Amino acid sequence: MATIQYLTTIEFGAGVSTQLPVVLAELGIRRPLWVTDRGIVDAGLLDRVSATLAEPVDRDTVFDATPPNPTEAAVHAAQQRYKAAGCDGIVALGGGSPIDLAKGVALMATHDGPLARWAGMAALGSIGPCAPIVAVPTTAGTGSEVGRGALLCLADGRKLVFVSPHLLPKRALCDPVLTVGMPAAMTAGTGMDALAHCVETYLSPRFNPPADAIALDGAARAWRWLAHAVRHPADLAARAEMMVAGLHGGLAFQKGLGAVHALSHPLGALTAPTLHHGTVNAVLLPHVLRFNAGHVGDKFARLQAAFGLDAGADLADAFTALNLRIGMPASLAAMGVPAAVRGRVVAGALADHSLPTNPRPLDAAALGHLFDSGMQ
Amino acid sequence: MATIQYLTTIEFGAGVSTQLPVVLAELGIRRPLWVTDRGIVDAGLLDRVSATLAEPVDRDTVFDATPPNPTEAAVHAAQQRYKAAGCDGIVALGGGSPIDLAKGVALMATHDGPLARWAGMAALGSIGPCAPIVAVPTTAGTGSEVGRGALLCLADGRKLVFVSPHLLPKRALCDPVLTVGMPAAMTAGTGMDALAHCVETYLSPRFNPPADAIALDGAARAWRWLAHAVRHPADLAARAEMMVAGLHGGLAFQKGLGAVHALSHPLGALTAPTLHHGTVNAVLLPHVLRFNAGHVGDKFARLQAAFGLDAGADLADAFTALNLRIGMPASLAAMGVPAAVRGRVVAGALADHSLPTNPRPLDAAALGHLFDSGMQ
Repeated sequence: MATIQYLTTIEFGAGVSTQLPVVLAELGIRRPLWVTDRGIVDAGLLDRVSATLAEPVDRDTVFDATPPNPTEAAVHAAQQRYKAAGCDGIVALGGGSPIDLAKGVALMATHDGPLARWAGMAALGSIGPCAPIVAVPTTAGTGSEVGRGALLCLADGRKLVFVSPHLLPKRALCDPVLTVGMPAAMTAGTGMDALAHCVETYLSPRFNPPADAIALDGAARAWRWLAHAVRHPADLAARAEMMVAGLHGGLAFQKGLGAVHALSHPLGALTAPTLHHGTVNAVLLPHVLRFNAGHVGDKFARLQAAFGLDAGADLADAFTALNLRIGMPASLAAMGVPAAVRGRVVAGALADHSLPTNPRPLDAAALGHLFDSGMQ
Repeated sequence: MATIQYLTTIEFGAGVSTQLPVVLAELGIRRPLWVTDRGIVDAGLLDRVSATLAEPVDRDTVFDATPPNPTEAAVHAAQQRYKAAGCDGIVALGGGSPIDLAKGVALMATHDGPLARWAGMAALGSIGPCAPIVAVPTTAGTGSEVGRGALLCLADGRKLVFVSPHLLPKRALCDPVLTVGMPAAMTAGTGMDALAHCVETYLSPRFNPPADAIALDGAARAWRWLAHAVRHPADLAARAEMMVAGLHGGLAFQKGLGAVHALSHPLGALTAPTLHHGTVNAVLLPHVLRFNAGHVGDKFARLQAAFGLDAGADLADAFTALNLRIGMPASLAAMGVPAAVRGRVVAGALADHSLPTNPRPLDAAALGHLFDSGMQ
């Protein structure tokens, strides 16, 4: 086990989730709201993690109805539970969805007005202290456990970012043991989320050398270990490497993402089909890399070197091959995305906060082209 | 210019020191104590940096008597000036010595009792909020501008570490332009300090993957750019790369250092001769690498790859060659260290906080051997 401090204090290691009672006591949280989802509860993870507490969890303090892409309605429902149960903090247990939802609850438990009022980079400075969050990730990919942002789907259909240093979890308990039971498709999809975070933040043109170093290292780990973790789900070393890759993506978020995320955010806001964020990123990544080629200085070469690829290899093709190897769908169409959403997705991407840090500037035509490529 | 946030908010870029008035206003500092040294003042850097303020600097708020290895006496003298002048924060302008001294002043301006009471890792939890510090480094190496520790020489002759998150500068203004006038010997010595920080933190056995990634990147930058910066002092790109390397060393400190620093701390506590910390580190580094070989897993191979060295190259020899190329002294003896201090240095190193994170355990005999090697 190890303690790592950058913005969030991270406790990392097999079995580290048993430290939860100590961490809650240190933060002065006596009655946390558990924000999680049905899959996590059904997998026995709520029971397992909460078994370390002195008393059984009061079911009034459990919100397990987190949707795959967390919504404003879910924020309000969970916040009602937080208030009714007299909670004084949050344990976010799960993947990126429960952790992001927990951030929405932490915000609305301490701030008035409609959720939309606090959306976007413009609201960053006006968000004050929020309810404290302890994040216990059960996937390896989101990075939300060390990120200061949350993506939430508003009632009006927009998927918007909420950003504040006050939304950073006070602690992240990163226990790779909790990810051992993850099904192959979830391992692959969340792992590709980690890889997409590392690659997009690395390619972001903003100057941030520590974030570049962390992102490049995270990308190399995910590249080396993801297929292995998918094939050997009980290999704890591979699970730990993937959990580090997820963390590194989150630590590098401050550099900004790119076109993959600009497109996957509005796609994630669709109510039908319900799309898995990391899997959408996996499908889009080769197309976006192809689009960005020639606009990234020597960064493709450095990624290729970090991945152990030949200098002459095509990076986008290598990502397509990885997707195939780990069972990712071949296209957005194969995931059930209808062509009719094209206009809505392009409009959402144009307004997305991740667009300005894509290395090659994009307009509506370019985004439409990327959507079309992703559909095929 | 760019903003980078891990623990300290770092503003980085040519000319970024002109942001000082904005930063002071944001932090609510109206009357800072300037902690600096005569060399910085004589080089015109105090005048240059303070010229951005609305009013000329009141000389009552300047402490420019920082010794090369800051002492308890200097902490008290500067603290007296802080109090007498009614200061409400500190601008630390210089290399590691003024920045470390500023941390001592920030601590003693807000805490009672003898300085020694707050020394060591044991006191970490009892140090509360300190006076706010803005660090404006004029060298590229110390990393103290983003570190939570300070090394101070007590009146009893010990050089001890003072550590608290409250000692972290609130802001670091990293302006490579300020390092352009640095003499070759200072460029080389402070640059080797950066390199030693990156190498020792990378080799520390603690588990901290983000720190490893940052340290390896910093080491690679310093390896590539240090000799160039020494030979071409006005090359701003090289100065910026070295400033990043210094930052990266400081960001990785949380992993712990090793035998180089365990020995250079008691050497830095000598009153005669007065030794430059980074230069001592440069001289010791090849010997410590030779000692640690075989106890570092694949990390020497990864350093060699990052440096572009052949897999068969001897890493320690490569560092000796770099020292020669940039004009570092050949030995501690050449720096005037008398053989008679051996026992005192070994005893200090045995008690030093950096010793436990050296990859190969050391006893008094091993430390004596390293001292002897360094003398030749």
